[in-house]
Amino acid sequence: MKTDILYQHGTLGALVPGLLNGTQKLSELLTHGDFGIGTLTGLNGELIILAGTVYQVQASGQVVVITDGDVPFANVHFAAFGASSPVAVQTAEAAEATMLSQIGTRNLFAAVSIHGQFDDMTTRAVKAQHRPFPGLAATAADQAVFSRDQVTGTLMGYWSPQLYAGMASPGFHLHFLSDAHDFGGHVLDFAGAAGDLATQVFSDVQLHLPTADQEFLQADLDGDLLADITKAEH
Amino acid sequence: MKTDILYQHGTLGALVPGLLNGTQKLSELLTHGDFGIGTLTGLNGELIILAGTVYQVQASGQVVVITDGDVPFANVHFAAFGASSPVAVQTAEAAEATMLSQIGTRNLFAAVSIHGQFDDMTTRAVKAQHRPFPGLAATAADQAVFSRDQVTGTLMGYWSPQLYAGMASPGFHLHFLSDAHDFGGHVLDFAGAAGDLATQVFSDVQLHLPTADQEFLQADLDGDLLADITKAEH
Repeated sequence: MKTDILYQHGTLGALVPGLLNGTQKLSELLTHGDFGIGTLTGLNGELIILAGTVYQVQASGQVVVITDGDVPFANVHFAAFGASSPVAVQTAEAAEATMLSQIGTRNLFAAVSIHGQFDDMTTRAVKAQHRPFPGLAATAADQAVFSRDQVTGTLMGYWSPQLYAGMASPGFHLHFLSDAHDFGGHVLDFAGAAGDLATQVFSDVQLHLPTADQEFLQADLDGDLLADITKAEH
Repeated sequence: MKTDILYQHGTLGALVPGLLNGTQKLSELLTHGDFGIGTLTGLNGELIILAGTVYQVQASGQVVVITDGDVPFANVHFAAFGASSPVAVQTAEAAEATMLSQIGTRNLFAAVSIHGQFDDMTTRAVKAQHRPFPGLAATAADQAVFSRDQVTGTLMGYWSPQLYAGMASPGFHLHFLSDAHDFGGHVLDFAGAAGDLATQVFSDVQLHLPTADQEFLQADLDGDLLADITKAEH
C-alpha cells in the first residue's frame, strides 16, 4: 500500500466540454485509496471518501453512503497523514495559507484535512446532468448551495500546483462532511475554523485515463480549457 | 512489470526557470522502465534508452553508453509495443500524422518507435549548462545541430496530450539513435522515412517529483510557462 502517491481517475479538462460519463467503477477506484473526493456520472453530487466509506452529498442536500457508481473524475490516496496540529483561523483564506504553509511548497501535490468546528460553512452540490451533457461551466452553475452554522466535521481535499491546471483544479479543491453525516459538499467558503490540521505530501501523482471510452478518446481537448476550469471550480 | 504506465521524473515547467539539477539517479529511473528519453544535470546531452541501455548524445556529437548520472527530467516505460506496421513517408509531418493515427487518439499518452532508414535526419544536443543555470529558452538555444543523410536507426519518444503542457512537451517529443550508435539526439526534423512503426498507448502516467530538492520546492512555477516550453522544445 503506497502512501506517497496520489491517484486520479479522469482529467479535469475532459469535464469542460461535458464528458461527464462515469468511466471507472467506485470499487476499482477504492483499490487506489481510502481517502478522497470525486463525483458520479453527470456530476451527480459531491463525493467524500473517508476511511474507505464513500459519502455522496446530493443536490437535495441529503448525504448517503454509496457502494456502487461510476466516476468520471476522482482523487484518492491511502491516508497516512502527518501529525496533526491545532489550527484556529477566521477565514477560508487564512486556513488555506496555514494549510499551504504546513505542506511547505506550492510545487507538490498534497492532501489536507481539518477536523473541527466551523462557525459558518457554505457548500454546494451540483445537480445531476443528463445527456446531452452540458459543459462544465453550465453544469457547475446548476447547483444547490447549502450553509450551516456551528458545524463540526471534516474539511478535506487536495492541493494541486498551478502547472497541472489542465488535469486538476489548481490550488485547493476542498469538500466537507459533517460528523453527523447530514451536511456537506464542495466547499465554497467558510469562516471561523478551529480544529486539527493534518497534511500528506505526495512524491508521485498517477493519472489514470479512460482508455475504453470512445467519447474521451475522440474529444477535442486541445483548446484553452483553463478559463472554464477556473470559473467552474471556484 | 507494468506496461500500461508511463513514468516521468521531473516536470517540464521546472526546466523553464532553469531548475536543471539532476534530482534522480539513472539507476533509480531504470527501475521504472527500459525504454525512454531524458537528459542529465545542466541538460548535458540527450538520452536515448533502448532495452535498458542508456545512450547519451553529447553536444560534441559523440554517442556514449552511460550507467551513471542524475536526471532532472526523463520519461521511461517498460516496452511492450504493439505489432509494428510498415511506414513510408516523405516528411516529419506525415510521419507524425501516421504515428498519431496508429495511436488512435490525441488524449492519451503513448510511446512511438520507427526503426528504419531516414534520407535526412536533423538532430540537436544541448550544450551542458553550469550554475547559475540559465532558463530553458536560453539553454535550448545553446545547442549543437547535426545532420546525417541515409541513416538507419530508431526514431523514438512519446506523445503527450496538449492538456498536460506544463508537465510534458505537448505533441511528439522525439529522439533518434543510429544503429551504428554514432549519431543521434533530440529530433528537429527529418525527411524520407521508411521503416517499421510501433506504438504503445498508456492508460496511466505517473509523475514523480523531486521532493528533497529545495530549489524545486521553493521555485515559483505559477507563471505562464507554456510559451517558453513551446519555444524550447520545437
